[in-house]
Amino acid sequence: VAQQQEDTSYSIYKPIVPVSKQTLLANVDVIANMQMSFQNEFEDGTYIRSRFVMNQFRLEIKGKVHEKVYFRFRDRYTRTVVPQSIDNISRSTDLAYLRFDVDEHWKIYGGKLCADWGGYEFDANPIDIYEYSDIIEYADNFLVGAGVSYALNNKKHEFTLQLLNARTANFFELYDTIPGIQEARFPFAAVLNWRGSFFGGKFNTIWSYSIFREAEYEYMNYFALGNQYKGKKFQVEYDFKWSDEQLDRKGIVSSFTDNIGIKTARNVRYVSHWTRLDYHLSNKVNLFFVGMLDDAYWQEPQADSRTKLRQAWGYIPGVEVYPFKNLNLKVFGAFIGRKYNYTDYAKQTLGMTNHDNYRISIGIISPLVIL
Amino acid sequence: VAQQQEDTSYSIYKPIVPVSKQTLLANVDVIANMQMSFQNEFEDGTYIRSRFVMNQFRLEIKGKVHEKVYFRFRDRYTRTVVPQSIDNISRSTDLAYLRFDVDEHWKIYGGKLCADWGGYEFDANPIDIYEYSDIIEYADNFLVGAGVSYALNNKKHEFTLQLLNARTANFFELYDTIPGIQEARFPFAAVLNWRGSFFGGKFNTIWSYSIFREAEYEYMNYFALGNQYKGKKFQVEYDFKWSDEQLDRKGIVSSFTDNIGIKTARNVRYVSHWTRLDYHLSNKVNLFFVGMLDDAYWQEPQADSRTKLRQAWGYIPGVEVYPFKNLNLKVFGAFIGRKYNYTDYAKQTLGMTNHDNYRISIGIISPLVIL
Amino acid sequence: VAQQQEDTSYSIYKPIVPVSKQTLLANVDVIANMQMSFQNEFEDGTYIRSRFVMNQFRLEIKGKVHEKVYFRFRDRYTRTVVPQSIDNISRSTDLAYLRFDVDEHWKIYGGKLCADWGGYEFDANPIDIYEYSDIIEYADNFLVGAGVSYALNNKKHEFTLQLLNARTANFFELYDTIPGIQEARFPFAAVLNWRGSFFGGKFNTIWSYSIFREAEYEYMNYFALGNQYKGKKFQVEYDFKWSDEQLDRKGIVSSFTDNIGIKTARNVRYVSHWTRLDYHLSNKVNLFFVGMLDDAYWQEPQADSRTKLRQAWGYIPGVEVYPFKNLNLKVFGAFIGRKYNYTDYAKQTLGMTNHDNYRISIGIISPLVIL
Repeated sequence: VAQQQEDTSYSIYKPIVPVSKQTLLANVDVIANMQMSFQNEFEDGTYIRSRFVMNQFRLEIKGKVHEKVYFRFRDRYTRTVVPQSIDNISRSTDLAYLRFDVDEHWKIYGGKLCADWGGYEFDANPIDIYEYSDIIEYADNFLVGAGVSYALNNKKHEFTLQLLNARTANFFELYDTIPGIQEARFPFAAVLNWRGSFFGGKFNTIWSYSIFREAEYEYMNYFALGNQYKGKKFQVEYDFKWSDEQLDRKGIVSSFTDNIGIKTARNVRYVSHWTRLDYHLSNKVNLFFVGMLDDAYWQEPQADSRTKLRQAWGYIPGVEVYPFKNLNLKVFGAFIGRKYNYTDYAKQTLGMTNHDNYRISIGIISPLVIL
Repeated sequence: VAQQQEDTSYSIYKPIVPVSKQTLLANVDVIANMQMSFQNEFEDGTYIRSRFVMNQFRLEIKGKVHEKVYFRFRDRYTRTVVPQSIDNISRSTDLAYLRFDVDEHWKIYGGKLCADWGGYEFDANPIDIYEYSDIIEYADNFLVGAGVSYALNNKKHEFTLQLLNARTANFFELYDTIPGIQEARFPFAAVLNWRGSFFGGKFNTIWSYSIFREAEYEYMNYFALGNQYKGKKFQVEYDFKWSDEQLDRKGIVSSFTDNIGIKTARNVRYVSHWTRLDYHLSNKVNLFFVGMLDDAYWQEPQADSRTKLRQAWGYIPGVEVYPFKNLNLKVFGAFIGRKYNYTDYAKQTLGMTNHDNYRISIGIISPLVIL
Repeated sequence: VAQQQEDTSYSIYKPIVPVSKQTLLANVDVIANMQMSFQNEFEDGTYIRSRFVMNQFRLEIKGKVHEKVYFRFRDRYTRTVVPQSIDNISRSTDLAYLRFDVDEHWKIYGGKLCADWGGYEFDANPIDIYEYSDIIEYADNFLVGAGVSYALNNKKHEFTLQLLNARTANFFELYDTIPGIQEARFPFAAVLNWRGSFFGGKFNTIWSYSIFREAEYEYMNYFALGNQYKGKKFQVEYDFKWSDEQLDRKGIVSSFTDNIGIKTARNVRYVSHWTRLDYHLSNKVNLFFVGMLDDAYWQEPQADSRTKLRQAWGYIPGVEVYPFKNLNLKVFGAFIGRKYNYTDYAKQTLGMTNHDNYRISIGIISPLVIL
């Protein structure tokens, strides 16, 4: 008799035949995504501190829950749980979506999705990233919405179109009031993505174009072009990213212009180059180098064009060792350096000064399958 | 040797024989309760905004963990995690309880329970509700306590008695100080529930009476009478709810009287009618209509009797489609309207004005079994 | 083709052979650690209130995820989720670590660990504790770091060395600014632990010594010596704890000296005696008594030596009943009393007054294996 908010209620299938538990257990994985390290931190050349850090801890449940339905959920334990004003779900929850596999070509997505930006940096599991480049670090990457994808016959090319909320928080939480700017009634992001594979998987691409409606008449255009060469011992990835923002969505330039009383900068552009080189010394040892260069531009009010404000460099040489044969766990040692160079214009007009920092980290990375 | 806060410690069964893992896996379900939608929102006839929303995401684990013990846990990812001052557990956690099946008649409950209010609206899985009526929307529905239930021989009737904390937060957090009112030493809720089944399950009831001790000498009486007719193609549910509150626990009337400086209204009554009609067009398609009417009454200080302040109407026509044969997942389209009509008395005395809103939603609902 | 932050990315094992799901399911447990009670509370002899409380609800996942790797994760639902400034992970997360079993002697630990303090009180599952003694109650017990342990051939003795962050929050969050004190660049805790077993397990020890670097030139020394006698019907545990703190890390004495304007007391000492007696009346019934005595000392500025400020007594007689043969669940009834006696010195200098409280609790305790 008793139900108390259980699920038999309104279904019209009298006894809903449950998806076989056996199959579920075989197809669904519970994963503890971890990156932990001991790190020694330096700022402008001075030793600041040492500490153990749990850089990443994201619990994940994913898998096929039905012949045609795939589920994925991922939640962070390194972020305060705060439901967001637009999409209602906690920011700590990265992913909570369903994928419907219509046929061998078409897939439909719905829920809190990973926005399908291009680029191999963003496509990697976050635990494999030692430090994100600027555009990704400051973007809302997990958004509620829907998508559809189409794979070509040979599965070598896949095209995805997503329609998402432009953000998780509302306009005023992000930008406060801006004179002359009116909140959009439907602040959306439309993302078009192409994943390609050439030469038997030796050369791959993840390219995307996105348009965001930040406010009435205020848009953001974003290109991200990821390219990968996968050799036997050697792998190269190169991402080019270009984000043109009528309102400064990332807030980096705004943090500079704040010095002269401009809380939200307008007509901003971020351009990013990112590369990762991997050299597999052996089955157990991988040498890598990550390099990044992020440029920030701003068009001063009344000015005709954008001026460069900053070059942010990143350089991460390191080694990764896989001690176990049949467990995806690596021990790493890495030098993670960042250098922020401001242009003369930014120094004089906005009072910025160059600075840099680096840290030396050793630690463990694993997308540990725990169930 | 090592234990470190593991569980072998004080048990007097030297090797506790664990409940067979096999059985656990068969009997316990992990469920992602989801309701997501794309909605277009209107207020007083004006289009306000569109957005994707994760209305509900509640992860649930439930099942028999022992021949005589059942466990249920449910936690929301759409609510801030804040331990409560009375019961110590986060408000985001709906359920965390054990049920002991003593024999075929008696069951004992303990933990954070779903208060056993009557009514089919409240008894439904929250993901099946597009909008709650006032009394449920503003009540504390998940409370720590204990209960006992007795089922008749034929299992057609079940009686439950619960003793619960009256709330999760303490008196001052809810009401602040009220002159002349003293906090109760044991603010409890006692709930008596009858679940009945007649004519081979064609007609069912969930009736309940509850009494709450809100403060010394201040009580709340609550009747909820749920009735269900289940035909082959047609289903009707009707709930009548009546809540008489010496201190305004729901806070709806207080939000009106706040205009004239009365922060916590006294001698308040809420009366609610709720109905849901379902017509199963086919195995795959269900048409439904939800209607609700919530009346709010208040007895002004020095007045002799309660006066009606507001009628809140709700009307939700919609369609639900089940695209999969063997998966409890539905796609819905619904018009969710609300209309708030104030009486002349409320308009003149409290300065209230009528308003209404509606939204047009399409989305997905599923109590997805993921493990 | 699609990956989207999944885990195949940088691994150099082309198809990572997953640890057999079958084995995982057999070896990994999901546990709901619960302690719930109905309690009647008294302060200084006066009945204050009654309530149902979920004292503990900690979800845990643990087990061998690989022949040589063990994983443990435990998270509380009775604490706000707040990532910490030093270790980045939420305080609600007790444990999130990996253990590598190098060989039969050596183990290596990494992640958010249970600091390996000695003593049987701390070593117990928190759900088995009705009230913690002062030192444990006010310490940061779960810290990110690394450890190594060595077991003797006969497995009867194990030695562990841990290096941990000294705390989860930074210096200023804990102590604010203290004149003359400089933050340490690496505030660490080093813990040395010995777990011994004698006379066929009849007599056992968990002894530890720890040193904490709280600030430049400011240390904390902590001894915890746990001893256990395990008879057939009778069990005795006795813990001696001694914590000498150049900066008052526990904050108990500081809460007294705050009265005379000293926010962070210096040169503080806590000395604690804790004992638990168990008498197994039968397989189903256990009688127990917990006694504790915590002394707090302080060396006034300019004084030569430490003076006792307070004796905090605890006494918990009770009974535990195991109603099920094959389920680790106990029903308890306990009287939990605390008495705080201040010395004349503390009364006169710091204005403290004696007080006491007790509560009468009945409830349920279970480390319930749910999957």
